[in-house]
Amino acid sequence: MSVTLAQSGEFGLLERIQRLLEEESRGAFKPTVGIGDDTAAFAPRAGFELLLTCDCMVEGRHFSFAHMTPMEIGRRAMVMNISDIGAMGGAPLCAVVSLGLRAGTSVADVEAIYRGFLAELNPLGVGIVGGNLAGSGDGLFINVTMLGEVEKDLLVKRSGARLGDVILVTGYPGQAAAGLQIMLTAYQGGKSGRDSLVRAYTRPGHRAREGRAVAQSRCATSMIDISDGLWGDLGHICRASGTGAVLEQERLPISTALREAAVRWGSDPHELVLRESDDYELLITCAPEDAVRLCSAINACSRVPVNAIGNITDPEKDIMLRLPDGSCYSPNTTGWNHFTR
Amino acid sequence: MSVTLAQSGEFGLLERIQRLLEEESRGAFKPTVGIGDDTAAFAPRAGFELLLTCDCMVEGRHFSFAHMTPMEIGRRAMVMNISDIGAMGGAPLCAVVSLGLRAGTSVADVEAIYRGFLAELNPLGVGIVGGNLAGSGDGLFINVTMLGEVEKDLLVKRSGARLGDVILVTGYPGQAAAGLQIMLTAYQGGKSGRDSLVRAYTRPGHRAREGRAVAQSRCATSMIDISDGLWGDLGHICRASGTGAVLEQERLPISTALREAAVRWGSDPHELVLRESDDYELLITCAPEDAVRLCSAINACSRVPVNAIGNITDPEKDIMLRLPDGSCYSPNTTGWNHFTR
Repeated sequence: MSVTLAQSGEFGLLERIQRLLEEESRGAFKPTVGIGDDTAAFAPRAGFELLLTCDCMVEGRHFSFAHMTPMEIGRRAMVMNISDIGAMGGAPLCAVVSLGLRAGTSVADVEAIYRGFLAELNPLGVGIVGGNLAGSGDGLFINVTMLGEVEKDLLVKRSGARLGDVILVTGYPGQAAAGLQIMLTAYQGGKSGRDSLVRAYTRPGHRAREGRAVAQSRCATSMIDISDGLWGDLGHICRASGTGAVLEQERLPISTALREAAVRWGSDPHELVLRESDDYELLITCAPEDAVRLCSAINACSRVPVNAIGNITDPEKDIMLRLPDGSCYSPNTTGWNHFTR
Repeated sequence: MSVTLAQSGEFGLLERIQRLLEEESRGAFKPTVGIGDDTAAFAPRAGFELLLTCDCMVEGRHFSFAHMTPMEIGRRAMVMNISDIGAMGGAPLCAVVSLGLRAGTSVADVEAIYRGFLAELNPLGVGIVGGNLAGSGDGLFINVTMLGEVEKDLLVKRSGARLGDVILVTGYPGQAAAGLQIMLTAYQGGKSGRDSLVRAYTRPGHRAREGRAVAQSRCATSMIDISDGLWGDLGHICRASGTGAVLEQERLPISTALREAAVRWGSDPHELVLRESDDYELLITCAPEDAVRLCSAINACSRVPVNAIGNITDPEKDIMLRLPDGSCYSPNTTGWNHFTR
C-alpha cells in the first residue's frame, strides 16, 4: 500500500521532493539559493524585464484524479504558467510551487505530480527553486508562481492593438472545453479511449516558443494566451487597447475532431471555437503589412497553424462576428467564470 | 445582505479588487506591467539578488473566520512572506496573490482580506502586481508569492553558522502557539477579550526591518525566521551549516504572559518557548566578537529585545539544552507538521 502524507509527515515529504528534484531536474537555471532556505535567491540579468505570473488548479474544479493522471495534473499546472510567460514574449526562468494536500493523499501521487512539473520544465531548462506544503480540507490544490524574463524592448502587452490590425490565432481553439465536456460525460471513471479533444484538456501544449518568436519578430502590437476562450480574451485585448474587433466566421479554425463533436451535439462549431475554453493558444495582433513576416517567424520554429481571423476596429463597433452573408452579430459567449458555474 | 462571489462572478470581483488596489495601495514599487496582463513585468536592479518565496494559509488549518477577522487573515498572509524576505537580509518588492474562494464567500470579506494585505504592504511601499482567483471546495485558501531584493554581498543564508558562534533570538518565541491554544479553547466563537498571546497569533509582527539591519551590519553568519518554532528552526540552521548547538535554558526569553500561561497549564515554560510555533522572530548566529555590534544594529532601528541564548557546537554534539545544573538533554519538540496534527 502506498504511503500517505499523514504517515510520511511534512518533513518526510519535503525530503522526498527535494531528492526527486535533485535527481530528475534538468534546470539549466542555477539560483544562488535554491530550495531549503527562507527564500530562493538569484541574480537577474541586466537589460531584461522580469515576468511574474501565478495560476492555480483546484481538485474538483480544474481536475479530478478520476479523469487525469497525477503526471498530467502536474504538467497542466506548469503549462498554464509557461503559456503566460510566452504570451508576453518571454522565456521562463524558475518556478515556486505551493501544494495543498489532503492527509490521505499518497506520496506516490505527489511525486508523480512533481514528475509532471519536470516533464514540462526540463525541456526548457527551468528549475523549481522553492515552495510550500500545506494541509487542505477536501480538495488538493496546486499553485504555481513562475518567473520569466524578456528583453526590455521585446515585451508584448495586450494593450497595443491598433485600428486596422490583423487578428491572428494559433492552433485550434475550443478543443479543451469540448474535451472536458466529453470527459465529464462519456468517459466518467476511465482514463482510456481518449480522443484528441480530451487530450487537448488533459495534455495541453503551450506556445511559449512561438510567443518568443513573435516577440523577436517585433511585428506584434499585442498578444495574449487564450486561457479564457478566444472571444473572452479578444475582449481583454480590445478593452486594454481601447478598440473594437470584427471576426470573420468562415475564417475561424475548426479542427476535424471539433467539427465532428459539433455534429454529434447539434452545436454550431463556430460557437465552440469562440466560447470559454482553457486552450493555451496565442491571439496576436499586428499591422496588415507585418502579418506575413510574423507568420513566417512562427513557422520557422513550429508546425502550429496560424490563421488570420479578423481585424481590429473602432471601439464604438464593439466586438462582432461577421457571417458569410456580411451580417454581423455578437454571439453569446462569456469568458470562464469560476464561481457561477 | 452582502454580495457573494456566486452573485458577483469572477470578473465582477476582479474589477472590485483592482479598484480597491488602485485607490488604497501606496506601493512605491512601480512595475512596467501591473495587474491585467498575462504576467506582471518589472525591471530588476543591477547588483541585487532577487528573493522569491511563497506561503499559504488554509481555512480550518491556519485560520478560521470564527477566530480572526478577514483583515487579520490578510495581514497574517503577508507577514509570513515579508518575514521570509527579511530573514535573508532583503527588502520586499512586490507580491502576487492566489485566492481559492467558496461560492458563498462574501465580496466584503474578500475586500477586507485585501485591506489586510495593504495594511502590511503599504508601510513598506510594496505593491500587489498580479494574482489569480479560483473556486475552492469547502475551505478558503490564500497563497502569497513575494519577491524581494538584497545587495549581492548582504545575502544571509542559513548555512553559514560556525563552531563557537553565538546564537541570538529576537522577541519572545512560543507566544503564537500559546495564543492559538487559548483561542481554540477559551475563546471559541468570540473575537473579544484577547490577551497578548492570542494577538501574537492573530496579529503577528515581522522582523523585516531588523533582518535588513542585521544584513547591513555584515556580522551575521546565518539567519532564519522561526516560523517552525525555535527548536525546529535551530535544527534547520545546524543541518544546513553542518554544526551542533547548545542552548542555555536559563537564557531563553519568556514573556510574562507565557510564563503565566505555563503556570495555568502546568507546563514547562521553556518547552513552550522551544516548541513548534508560528512566531516570526529571527534566529541569528554570529562570531562572539560581533555580537555587540549586531545587537546594536538591531537596537538602532527597533525596540525588540535580542537575547544570546547559546552557542554553535560540533556536529557530533547534536542540538542540546543545558540546564542550570550543567546537565544537557534534547527536549521532545518537533517542528510544525501540517499533516499529522
